[in-house]
Amino acid sequence: MSNEIVLTGIKPTGKVHLGNYIGAIKPALQIAGTSDCTSLYFIADYHGLTFIQDRDEFNTLSYSIAATWLALGLDPDRVIFYRQSDVPEIFELSWILSCLTSKGLMNRAHAYKSIHDKNEQLGLDSDTGVNMGLYTYPILMAADILLFQSDKVPVGKDQIQHVEIARDIAEGFNRIYGDTFKLPDYIVDEKTAVIPGLDGRKMSKSYNNTIPLFEPAEHLKKLINKIKTDSTPPQAPKNPDTSNIYLLYKEFATPAQVQDFRNKYLNGISWGDAKQELFQVVNAYLEEPRKKYNKLMVAPVQIDDILNEGARKARAIAAPLLKKVKLKIGRYN
Amino acid sequence: MSNEIVLTGIKPTGKVHLGNYIGAIKPALQIAGTSDCTSLYFIADYHGLTFIQDRDEFNTLSYSIAATWLALGLDPDRVIFYRQSDVPEIFELSWILSCLTSKGLMNRAHAYKSIHDKNEQLGLDSDTGVNMGLYTYPILMAADILLFQSDKVPVGKDQIQHVEIARDIAEGFNRIYGDTFKLPDYIVDEKTAVIPGLDGRKMSKSYNNTIPLFEPAEHLKKLINKIKTDSTPPQAPKNPDTSNIYLLYKEFATPAQVQDFRNKYLNGISWGDAKQELFQVVNAYLEEPRKKYNKLMVAPVQIDDILNEGARKARAIAAPLLKKVKLKIGRYN
Repeated sequence: MSNEIVLTGIKPTGKVHLGNYIGAIKPALQIAGTSDCTSLYFIADYHGLTFIQDRDEFNTLSYSIAATWLALGLDPDRVIFYRQSDVPEIFELSWILSCLTSKGLMNRAHAYKSIHDKNEQLGLDSDTGVNMGLYTYPILMAADILLFQSDKVPVGKDQIQHVEIARDIAEGFNRIYGDTFKLPDYIVDEKTAVIPGLDGRKMSKSYNNTIPLFEPAEHLKKLINKIKTDSTPPQAPKNPDTSNIYLLYKEFATPAQVQDFRNKYLNGISWGDAKQELFQVVNAYLEEPRKKYNKLMVAPVQIDDILNEGARKARAIAAPLLKKVKLKIGRYN
Repeated sequence: MSNEIVLTGIKPTGKVHLGNYIGAIKPALQIAGTSDCTSLYFIADYHGLTFIQDRDEFNTLSYSIAATWLALGLDPDRVIFYRQSDVPEIFELSWILSCLTSKGLMNRAHAYKSIHDKNEQLGLDSDTGVNMGLYTYPILMAADILLFQSDKVPVGKDQIQHVEIARDIAEGFNRIYGDTFKLPDYIVDEKTAVIPGLDGRKMSKSYNNTIPLFEPAEHLKKLINKIKTDSTPPQAPKNPDTSNIYLLYKEFATPAQVQDFRNKYLNGISWGDAKQELFQVVNAYLEEPRKKYNKLMVAPVQIDDILNEGARKARAIAAPLLKKVKLKIGRYN
């Protein structure tokens, strides 16, 4: 269907790494680049406010995540790319929806529930360290989704419940006020590759084993040299399928390069040479995006221009829907 | 101080009655009419959404409460008179503030706490019947207040805690991001008269003993005739100070009329005649406002025009402050 609406929220987090790119950004850009649907991608900066309360950090992370996606090929002519905080309709809808959302539903949302349960285990007050942004976030996410009549919401597994909550809230509204909101579905890519980090575990900030995406070439090289390997002698044949170097290589090389690299493994390649080749393909792949990223980050006004234009398009969809919602609740004659 | 800002929220509720008028509306209109401060009065219609989920009821109550205040003399040239749902900045600020508000603070807010405790007494889940609008309402009220740098918030005793919560939230924001919000104070009129209803208890919708403000004259007369009296014989002298008829009379009559009425009590007046005199003064007092109210209600576009102009003035204050807040949290360069 050509008019399907696909909506993706992008949380501003720390430095984006190769694992984020391969697991989330690359597939999302593929959807946006190939499909006929209307794609909306937004920087969930006000979501970030639930955990970032430092002015400079908030500012830098928001721009940095926008620059990352643009540098990696997000085309603002094909995707409506905006910042959540530029669309006031979201927050007004969020209030309306909160009046129709039972508190019990929020109590069961797992992000809150896991902190709650941990506090209880520690013998603390169950709400210790919980702010109301964190607690009510699923309602804001419902507003993010429903305000654009989204059909599909690609999410990680940890976000499935939030899309289900948005669906519940939409059903509740439709039941009281008549058919208004589309019921969104989530899409989860079950096949998402687990990208190994420097120590072989899943690449993750929490393991401190990441390779950031836009490091200078020399630093990228240094990091790749740190990838953990075993003590197989240099000339011995090696199994590519159990090698983290090979797994990463596959994601950035052409099929011909991959075949060639595979043969080298089977014929014996030293870990040092393998790392060197990995560096070459990753660096070649990221060279242009890195330049573009750095260019955007020194003059974020270009990012603002793009996001402002995106917000204009987003609000052109959001404002009429919010008006419709207000009519339904009785706001106007 | 001439630039003090006084903000009053008006909840859309059922038919306004004499008790509401004497206890709340009349003193609020006196403040607005005499003082040098900037007065903001707003219809808290989106607050109403926490308990009114019927389109027609929501619509009628919002217009009706606006028409009531205008009919009773609110001068939109002296008071910034607007509808909460016309000021989107409130809801965006509400989200920002929620990220700085601990969940524990909301757990202690008494409107929620009293339902919570009642549920527990009944052996129910403690959040039964609680929607998230009701639970988070104190944050919305903080946004209502702080967005206009309000100095004073006149409230009933049951709302004191909410102003204190707004103050706490403002202090929290100022502590993290630097001095931004004024700390609001509440004003409670301790002397508020208790207006007796038809049965002699406090006039209140929950006792079903009210005299609505804008009833047709014949119905007003009928209701006044229902006021409970004792069996003192018609010609016997009567104590005005224990008579509910006299207490109501005082609120609507001139001092000379009151003195005269008092003498009649002391010299003996039948309850029937006393009720007839009460009807005369109340009806005379309300005749013009009732006409104005009915005129507004048949053509609510006039109400819209006034509220739209109020919203324009309110947003001229709100928008620059919200921008300042966004700068502080790191939203812009």
